[in-house]
Amino acid sequence: RCHHPIVKMLDLPFLPFCVLLGGLGFVCVAFVSAWCQHWRGGFALDGSAQTFNWHPVLMVTGMVVLYGAAALVYRLPATWSGPKLPWKVLHGALALAAFALAVLGLAAVFRFHNEHKTPNMYSLHSWLGLATVLLFSCQWLAGFCTFLLPWAPAWLRALYKPVHVFFGSTILLLSVASCVSGINEKLFFSLKNGTTEYNRLPAEAVFANTLGLLILLFGVLVLGALARPSWKRPDTDSPESCQVPAPLR
Amino acid sequence: RCHHPIVKMLDLPFLPFCVLLGGLGFVCVAFVSAWCQHWRGGFALDGSAQTFNWHPVLMVTGMVVLYGAAALVYRLPATWSGPKLPWKVLHGALALAAFALAVLGLAAVFRFHNEHKTPNMYSLHSWLGLATVLLFSCQWLAGFCTFLLPWAPAWLRALYKPVHVFFGSTILLLSVASCVSGINEKLFFSLKNGTTEYNRLPAEAVFANTLGLLILLFGVLVLGALARPSWKRPDTDSPESCQVPAPLR
Repeated sequence: RCHHPIVKMLDLPFLPFCVLLGGLGFVCVAFVSAWCQHWRGGFALDGSAQTFNWHPVLMVTGMVVLYGAAALVYRLPATWSGPKLPWKVLHGALALAAFALAVLGLAAVFRFHNEHKTPNMYSLHSWLGLATVLLFSCQWLAGFCTFLLPWAPAWLRALYKPVHVFFGSTILLLSVASCVSGINEKLFFSLKNGTTEYNRLPAEAVFANTLGLLILLFGVLVLGALARPSWKRPDTDSPESCQVPAPLR
Repeated sequence: RCHHPIVKMLDLPFLPFCVLLGGLGFVCVAFVSAWCQHWRGGFALDGSAQTFNWHPVLMVTGMVVLYGAAALVYRLPATWSGPKLPWKVLHGALALAAFALAVLGLAAVFRFHNEHKTPNMYSLHSWLGLATVLLFSCQWLAGFCTFLLPWAPAWLRALYKPVHVFFGSTILLLSVASCVSGINEKLFFSLKNGTTEYNRLPAEAVFANTLGLLILLFGVLVLGALARPSWKRPDTDSPESCQVPAPLR
C-alpha cells in the first residue's frame, strides 16, 4: 500500500460514506414506492395488482437496503473494541428484519398470482429471487447457530466465518440481480398497450429504469465497502476468534 | 487467520479451482450457443432473428467468460515473480478480446432492431448492458494508459490501482446482472404463443433459466476468487508499485 499524499487524501472515512449510502438507500425505497404508488395504482391487501405492488417495495427495502445495513455493521469502527455481543445482536436483528420483509414480499407476489390463476416460479427472475431468499435463510440460521449461540466450538467459528462473509456478499449480488431482472420484467408486463408501450420509453419506464440503476449503485457501493481492506476490522488476525468462547458463568 | 487443521484442509489451491472454473465457463458458452442454435433458429448475419442470436452468445463469451479469465490473470502464482510486462500484456489482451466480442454482440442487436424498426435502448437491460460496456471501455483505456504505457508516474499507478481493481469486479457484477435480465427478457419475448408460453415452463425455459443461474455461479466464483486474500499476490505491500518505473534506456 502506497502512502503518496494524493492516495491518502482520497481515503474516504467510513462514516461520511455511510451517510451518503444511507441517503442512497432512502432514495431507492422512495423511488420504488413512488413507482408503485404513482404509476401502478398504490397498495392493497386484497390479492389485486395493488397487492403485487408490495412485492417490489418489500424486496428492495428488505433484501437490498436493510440487508446492506446489516452487512456493514462490522465496518463501524465502534464495533472493533469492547464486547462483541451487542453488535452481533444488531447484525442478526437487521438481517432478520430484512428476511421478514423478504418473506412478506414473497407472500405478496404468490397471493397475487394465486388470485389471478397465474403460474408461480417460471421466470428466471423468480428462480433467482427464490434461490436468493432461501440462501439468505440458510445464511441467517447458520450465522445464528455458529456466532450467537454460545456453544459453537471455536474451530467451527473460524471455519465458517470466511464462508459466511463470502455468502454475505454473494446474497447481496444475487438480490441486486433479482431486482434488476424483476423491474425489467414488470415493465414489459405493465407497459404494453398503445401509448404507454415500454419501447416508447414513457416517463414510467425512465423512472423505473433509473430505479434499477440506483439499486445497482447501492449494491456496488455496499460490496465495495465490504471488500475495502482499510475499512475492515484491523484485528482480524488476532487469535480471538480461535479461542474457546468464555464459559457462560 | 486461524490455522486449525480443518480450516487449512479446505484452503483450495488456485489452479484446481481454475480448471473447474474454466469448465464452468465452457458450459456457459455451450449452453447459450445450444439455446440459440436449438430453440432460436441458429445464426446468420442478415439482420434477421438469427442475427440477434449472436448477441447473447457474444456477450456471455466476452463480458462474462473471457472477462473473468482476464480478471484472474494476476491470481496465477506464476505472475508474482519475474517480469510483469508479459502478464500485463496478457491481461490487457484478454480484456481487449472480451471487449471486441462485446462490441460485435452490441452490433448484432442494433442491426436486428434497426432491420425490424424496433426502438433501441429502452429497457433496463439495454441501459444496464450499454453502461457496462461503456464502463469497460473506460476501464480498458485507463488501464492501458496507466499500467502499460511506460511514462505514467508511479503516484498515478498507485492512485489508480485500487480504482481499477474495484471497477474490475464491479463491471463483472454489472455484466452478470445484464445477462440475467437479458435472458429473462428474451424468454418473455420468445415464449408467448399458446403451447410454448413461458409460464408453462417449456424445456427451453428450463434450459435458459439454468443458463442464467450458471452465469451467476460463474460470476460469483470469479468475484469470490478475486476477493480471496490467500490468492492475492503476497507482495502487494512491497514498495515496487510506488517506485518510479525504470528508465527506458
